[in-house]
Amino acid sequence: MISDRKLEHLMLCRNNDVEYRKKTGFEDIEFIHKALPEVNKEEINLSTDFFGKKMDAPIIISAITGGHPASLKINRELARAADKLNIGMGVGSQRAAIENPELAPTYTVVREEAPSSFLIGNIGAPQIELAEKAADMMDADALALHLNPLQEAIQPEGDVDATGYTESIEEISKNLKLPVIAKETGAGISGQDAHTLEKAGVSAVDVAGSGGTSWAAVETYRAKDRYLGDLYWDWGIPTAISTVEVCESVNVPVISSGGIRTGLDAAKAIALGADAVGIALPLLKDAYIGHEAVITRLEKFKEELRVAMFLVGASNLEELRNSDIII
Amino acid sequence: MISDRKLEHLMLCRNNDVEYRKKTGFEDIEFIHKALPEVNKEEINLSTDFFGKKMDAPIIISAITGGHPASLKINRELARAADKLNIGMGVGSQRAAIENPELAPTYTVVREEAPSSFLIGNIGAPQIELAEKAADMMDADALALHLNPLQEAIQPEGDVDATGYTESIEEISKNLKLPVIAKETGAGISGQDAHTLEKAGVSAVDVAGSGGTSWAAVETYRAKDRYLGDLYWDWGIPTAISTVEVCESVNVPVISSGGIRTGLDAAKAIALGADAVGIALPLLKDAYIGHEAVITRLEKFKEELRVAMFLVGASNLEELRNSDIII
Amino acid sequence: MISDRKLEHLMLCRNNDVEYRKKTGFEDIEFIHKALPEVNKEEINLSTDFFGKKMDAPIIISAITGGHPASLKINRELARAADKLNIGMGVGSQRAAIENPELAPTYTVVREEAPSSFLIGNIGAPQIELAEKAADMMDADALALHLNPLQEAIQPEGDVDATGYTESIEEISKNLKLPVIAKETGAGISGQDAHTLEKAGVSAVDVAGSGGTSWAAVETYRAKDRYLGDLYWDWGIPTAISTVEVCESVNVPVISSGGIRTGLDAAKAIALGADAVGIALPLLKDAYIGHEAVITRLEKFKEELRVAMFLVGASNLEELRNSDIII
Amino acid sequence: MISDRKLEHLMLCRNNDVEYRKKTGFEDIEFIHKALPEVNKEEINLSTDFFGKKMDAPIIISAITGGHPASLKINRELARAADKLNIGMGVGSQRAAIENPELAPTYTVVREEAPSSFLIGNIGAPQIELAEKAADMMDADALALHLNPLQEAIQPEGDVDATGYTESIEEISKNLKLPVIAKETGAGISGQDAHTLEKAGVSAVDVAGSGGTSWAAVETYRAKDRYLGDLYWDWGIPTAISTVEVCESVNVPVISSGGIRTGLDAAKAIALGADAVGIALPLLKDAYIGHEAVITRLEKFKEELRVAMFLVGASNLEELRNSDIII
Ligand SMILES: Cc1cc2nc3c(=O)[nH]c(=O)nc-3n(C[C@H](O)[C@H](O)[C@H](O)COP(=O)(O)O)c2cc1C
Ligand SMILES: Cc1cc2nc3c(=O)[nH]c(=O)nc-3n(C[C@H](O)[C@H](O)[C@H](O)COP(=O)(O)O)c2cc1C
Ligand SMILES: Cc1cc2nc3c(=O)[nH]c(=O)nc-3n(C[C@H](O)[C@H](O)[C@H](O)COP(=O)(O)O)c2cc1C
Ligand SMILES: Cc1cc2nc3c(=O)[nH]c(=O)nc-3n(C[C@H](O)[C@H](O)[C@H](O)COP(=O)(O)O)c2cc1C
Repeated sequence: MISDRKLEHLMLCRNNDVEYRKKTGFEDIEFIHKALPEVNKEEINLSTDFFGKKMDAPIIISAITGGHPASLKINRELARAADKLNIGMGVGSQRAAIENPELAPTYTVVREEAPSSFLIGNIGAPQIELAEKAADMMDADALALHLNPLQEAIQPEGDVDATGYTESIEEISKNLKLPVIAKETGAGISGQDAHTLEKAGVSAVDVAGSGGTSWAAVETYRAKDRYLGDLYWDWGIPTAISTVEVCESVNVPVISSGGIRTGLDAAKAIALGADAVGIALPLLKDAYIGHEAVITRLEKFKEELRVAMFLVGASNLEELRNSDIII
Repeated sequence: MISDRKLEHLMLCRNNDVEYRKKTGFEDIEFIHKALPEVNKEEINLSTDFFGKKMDAPIIISAITGGHPASLKINRELARAADKLNIGMGVGSQRAAIENPELAPTYTVVREEAPSSFLIGNIGAPQIELAEKAADMMDADALALHLNPLQEAIQPEGDVDATGYTESIEEISKNLKLPVIAKETGAGISGQDAHTLEKAGVSAVDVAGSGGTSWAAVETYRAKDRYLGDLYWDWGIPTAISTVEVCESVNVPVISSGGIRTGLDAAKAIALGADAVGIALPLLKDAYIGHEAVITRLEKFKEELRVAMFLVGASNLEELRNSDIII
Repeated sequence: MISDRKLEHLMLCRNNDVEYRKKTGFEDIEFIHKALPEVNKEEINLSTDFFGKKMDAPIIISAITGGHPASLKINRELARAADKLNIGMGVGSQRAAIENPELAPTYTVVREEAPSSFLIGNIGAPQIELAEKAADMMDADALALHLNPLQEAIQPEGDVDATGYTESIEEISKNLKLPVIAKETGAGISGQDAHTLEKAGVSAVDVAGSGGTSWAAVETYRAKDRYLGDLYWDWGIPTAISTVEVCESVNVPVISSGGIRTGLDAAKAIALGADAVGIALPLLKDAYIGHEAVITRLEKFKEELRVAMFLVGASNLEELRNSDIII
Repeated sequence: MISDRKLEHLMLCRNNDVEYRKKTGFEDIEFIHKALPEVNKEEINLSTDFFGKKMDAPIIISAITGGHPASLKINRELARAADKLNIGMGVGSQRAAIENPELAPTYTVVREEAPSSFLIGNIGAPQIELAEKAADMMDADALALHLNPLQEAIQPEGDVDATGYTESIEEISKNLKLPVIAKETGAGISGQDAHTLEKAGVSAVDVAGSGGTSWAAVETYRAKDRYLGDLYWDWGIPTAISTVEVCESVNVPVISSGGIRTGLDAAKAIALGADAVGIALPLLKDAYIGHEAVITRLEKFKEELRVAMFLVGASNLEELRNSDIII
């Protein structure tokens, strides 16, 4: 039953316009061109360390799927790309496979295909009892606890009791041996919520702000009556704003995601303080074609990032993070 | 004669575009999404007390009609919805029925259909002599004194002597046993006027600001020569601005109305300080269909309000009033 | 020869789009609606004194024409309207008639038709020798010295030596028995120029700012090569800004003109500090039809002004000048 | 081989839309109209001294071409115009002709046709060894060192090692007998880079900011895959902003260029502090027609500049530089 909804979500995201009408805010941010970069673009270093694992670029394939037979191919193709490029990757919520072990391969394929990549498991914030199992299943490097009140509110069958989340996050963070990442799913995290999450003990925050995939949009297509999803289609904190707010509020690593579509967006996110960026929707579409399509997009993405770094005179991510921007 | 104009107004509002081209200002106000609402949406409490009467939601059907045979059905259907949902309701100006008692049933039907709802009578601000009769006729819980200088100025047969209004409001407020509500009709109330009204002794203010039904627009259609109504079509203080100004200027309860179209608008009005919201035009159109249509719209409206409250972590109206907004 | 150009100008203004693309700035100014005007609209007083002559409304028909046979009818019809409404009126530059007395009737018709109206003669700022003759010809109540560097710069045969203007204005102001009005022709007057003019001794300033008739536009149509007029089409200080600046810089009366099209524009100009408003282009078009058309437009204009005054609670121009505006 | 790319560039610039979508910023800058200019437009003086050579107008034909047989005609026609109008002119990068002396005439034609004009040689910033040869070849009055990291980054065969540029500029500035001009090629120079350049010893800075020809755009048409050029099409510091920044940061003369299209743009650039303006793209198109077309455009340009000066009351460039502007 959960699986069917998952397929519906995949199909809707693949075929329909499910993105925010409101922008991420990155389009209002500009770098200052350097006529004298004093950098050799060939020697720009995109690599970064994430919880002890080296990634060749500050890119994480955001949590998308798993738990439905159709997820197997998607996760396999994404994982092959993650492996090839040595970047990070998350999987979708693992509850289905914990409840129904037959679905486990749709997740474990990721570790098989990307044996040394930085991989992130995924469960809902209140699912204390699933945390360890989820991490183990994946041989994960970190576990994401997703926060999706907007989707739950719009989804006809949504779970709208959001009490106890903070406590549950605290519990999991205390007991799990892996780093815990608090992750929104497209409506963003405020500075204040980020502060609460850091106090609850999370090891990283993934802002997943508005401007990319809108879960109100996705659920609009599923609803009998579209008024609610349509009204809330654009609800959320734009990714650029959420990134600034979270980076100013916490000391743990920050992943900027939600509507990240080019390496120039990524460069801006990093200049705003992010440690890495996440991408979901475009890679889902590529994964249907195959891992080469995923890789092609991500190679372009890396080249776009490199050009931005070259033109602001940054030879590595640390220098990019310190470059000037105009808002 | 008055009755004929009333029918004309109903027909124009039902069939023509009579809304402001300028917006209410609510579209420029945003809530801050809470990824951790810590609220159970099922337990959100929309109820509020208004002058000692409990309403199940902070919604008042704004003054629309009465005084013409055609009003009977409209008021009956609106009252049934008010009764079913246990919300407030106002009627249109009662002068006609006081001058011509035969028309009284078009008003009294409201109390019959909504025996325990919070009901508001309605007369013009200077009509001291009608105040008590109007309140009695309806067995009203409060009496609205409407202020409509814009309509009077554009209406060919308008009464454009607006002197003595403040004094008359003072007089009625002092002598009537019921709470008196000063109410605009779509052009809004400034902070300064609200202050004058509070000093004159009113018990509540209904801002009825610009952005919804425009009385200059309505009268444009009735005028021989449209230049004047067209020029003043957008005259007025946008509802969001009027709401902020009035809430900052007075200590009595404030109703925010004029262009309130969704529960998200309502949530914003309440976060700006309003105690309840009023809606007229969309419900008039629904009332022609029947009370079920009115109820359906208002149920959606309540759900929209609940979703906003959930997503900002407010479990009741008091918490909503204290939530952060960005202007 | 001068006469031919005058006819060309009339025809171009009548038939072509000669208005600024950039607005006057009045559209960005808003009054604050008064729900409690405490004014009787029937008793609103629009009258004002201008240099000792009473006008029934603060309206001056701006300088348009004279000096070509075709001007006779236009000036006659405008003068009849000025007489009927007891408002002020200016004529176009009188040089032609001083140089060629046969053309005098095209100006003197104005005094004949409007024997008691406030009438304004008109010459170019440097034409010291014409001042007295121009005033006498018209039995004028004041003499306008027009400033039109934009037109001179774009006009193929323009007189582009603008040196000595200030001195000449000083000279005329000192010697003429009538009040002297410094008047732009559509590009506006800055606060600094207004200060210079006041020091030079003028008795009033007519800002004639940008947003209405553009003399760069008019001359664009006459030029062999349109690039210059097109580039400067929108050059000038918007009327609302020029009005604010001039009113803040001088103590003499200020006429606000240039793109004044409705009584609401006029109300805003007066609230910004102007003593009266001027209108040219729309009245020129009406004058071709006849004085009734001019009167009809101006009656509407007065009604629009009265409605604005009613809705801000101003019973006379002094109160309007003190009403609040939002910029 | 270099020559072929040069021809491609010429053809693309002639036939395709290669301009920034983002504006120069001059459109947001306004002069304050002077109703009393106190200037005789006929006597306005546009002349200026540049490194000891007098120019009849503050205009420099920006570096465009040379080094391909097709360049000969273009440079000849441009030089004839420069000679006729006694203005400055730059040539395109001279490397080709230094490496292949047969191509020298495509550059030397400029000095032949404009024997007494202010002429500027051109090489890339790191090409120390070419500096003297380039200057000598042209009998140049100054040598421009061009900075074009944006083009190099987008161009498939681009040289993306931008290290050592500052040092090389320092070296050339110290050793060359001519003034050295640091020149961008359309992406602008920041205040900080200008400061670095002044410290490195350059004698002038040509901002060549964004808003005119976009080298990302040009290279987009040449690329196999257009994503990169398209993404960076609008990268750069708008010319007006770059002009302000550079003028505030350095004490050497500043040339404002990049999207300068009218004499009004030029007037604004000079009021912002520039000593002269540069123009490339429109003159390239004219040069294909012949020097008369170049002259016609530049005569209009000068007239536009003169009108701006007249209307702000500036009789020479120094007064223009001190006139007020609104941003
Ligand atoms: C089909 C689909 C399924 C998703 N499922 C999950 C999920 O199970 N868990 C989660 O944390 N995020 C999930 N997300 C959210 C993404 O991880 C990401 O935060 C969001 O889509 C915004 O990024 P984007 O704009 O690049 O798509 C899903 C996204 C998509 C498109
Ligand atoms: C047909 C119609 C009749 C109305 N009559 C009255 C009235 O008699 N008294 C009054 O106070 N307001 C009257 N109103 C104004 C409404 O109460 C309300 O303030 C205004 O329409 C703005 O709300 P809305 O945008 O939701 O329509 C009337 C509105 C409509 C549409
Ligand atoms: C056809 C025509 C002729 C004008 N001739 C004169 C003139 O001779 N002297 C003068 O001071 N202004 C002259 N003006 C300018 C007007 O007085 C006025 O300042 C300008 O048109 C802006 O007002 P408007 O936008 O209402 O037309 C003329 C305007 C028009 C349309
Ligand atoms: C076809 C073409 C070739 C150019 N080649 C050079 C060059 O070799 N060296 C240089 O410094 N600038 C070169 N430029 C840049 C121009 O000098 C100028 O800075 C830029 O085009 C912006 O000005 P514009 O918007 O007026 O075209 C070239 C421009 C064009 C259009």
